[in-house]
Amino acid sequence: MKLIIGNKNYSSWSLRGWLAAKQSGLGFDEITVPILGEAWDKRKDSEEFQPSSGKVPILWDGDNVIWDSFAIMEYLADKVGRDRFWPKDEAARGMARSMVAEMHSSYAELRAELPMNVRRRIELKEVSDTTRQQIVRVLQLWAEARARHGSAGPFLFGTFGAADIFYAPVVSRFVTYGIGVPGFAQSYMEAIWEHAWMQEWINASEDEEWVIEQYEAIG
Amino acid sequence: MKLIIGNKNYSSWSLRGWLAAKQSGLGFDEITVPILGEAWDKRKDSEEFQPSSGKVPILWDGDNVIWDSFAIMEYLADKVGRDRFWPKDEAARGMARSMVAEMHSSYAELRAELPMNVRRRIELKEVSDTTRQQIVRVLQLWAEARARHGSAGPFLFGTFGAADIFYAPVVSRFVTYGIGVPGFAQSYMEAIWEHAWMQEWINASEDEEWVIEQYEAIG
Repeated sequence: MKLIIGNKNYSSWSLRGWLAAKQSGLGFDEITVPILGEAWDKRKDSEEFQPSSGKVPILWDGDNVIWDSFAIMEYLADKVGRDRFWPKDEAARGMARSMVAEMHSSYAELRAELPMNVRRRIELKEVSDTTRQQIVRVLQLWAEARARHGSAGPFLFGTFGAADIFYAPVVSRFVTYGIGVPGFAQSYMEAIWEHAWMQEWINASEDEEWVIEQYEAIG
Repeated sequence: MKLIIGNKNYSSWSLRGWLAAKQSGLGFDEITVPILGEAWDKRKDSEEFQPSSGKVPILWDGDNVIWDSFAIMEYLADKVGRDRFWPKDEAARGMARSMVAEMHSSYAELRAELPMNVRRRIELKEVSDTTRQQIVRVLQLWAEARARHGSAGPFLFGTFGAADIFYAPVVSRFVTYGIGVPGFAQSYMEAIWEHAWMQEWINASEDEEWVIEQYEAIG
């Protein structure tokens, strides 16, 4: 299998697809295409990118092609078994499925105002009312998942799974923009940040110096 | 089970959740809450709506609550078996999953410019470039699904399933706004429009006269 992703520093959807591939336990080659600059312009119209109309992440499994991080995760869950991604308990699974779907289709303002930037630290002075409501909503969902279904471990539904994969980029945003959160959320965010795969992703993002240069050259 | 939905005429996400409930073959009670007017204002802050923070559709299965049409469909697929919703063939399933995820997270401009209105017929004189590109993209996806995986029947992947459930509101938009489409798409759209459940939904939407009155009163 081959997973095509964007820059580790900026591409939150790539992070989700990549964590899903890690969680599957299947081997995969990783191809990073910088989403700024010439390499992207050259590749986005290639046959490799055509099925998604130029978006990352894209998973190629032989001739099968799957795009969109949600579809990639579910395709992999089909291969390795649902239980590796989703809670076994039906009530917990219903909530996890709802939280993942909500993150997949919503939070446009949060994404736009707090774009993922793994390396940079910026203390946000103020956010819009809509984004503030979205932050509160995320914290409520985390609180409820942790309280109702999180007793088996430090993650949203105890062990690391689909909901953590989908909220990991939000954790990154809350960390790097210095969003004040209550203690339970702080603990959850630390568990995500210290997860071996997150550390691997963060460290790789630090090496993307050439991206900064390109970014600064563009202005 | 109890499915809470909005007006059949306007709520495209409700149509997806409702078709998913129909496709599951499980019995469910249907509660329609008009998304305009007093009834909505009263109910949206109720305990029934709280888990989704006021959005429809919502599925209550005993004490389990699932919101977002995608999560509802997958929760039901967990109960009755994946094959009722998704193609058995892996390549087809990968594409169906990608198409459903893309519809779930994208097409904001198409939604905004062509809001679902099952009853009304309006010939659109022009659409924005972005919406035009999105229409072309949908037609490309339909063409590819039909050509590669649609031989067993008139639907995107042959038999009626998840992809049809997610693109049904788009069919409704193309029909009611008189979007010109090639012959293969016309045939597909007729198959959707004539499907017994779509007819049931369309007929029910015709009876929502009181909604029109409310809508016109609001202006």
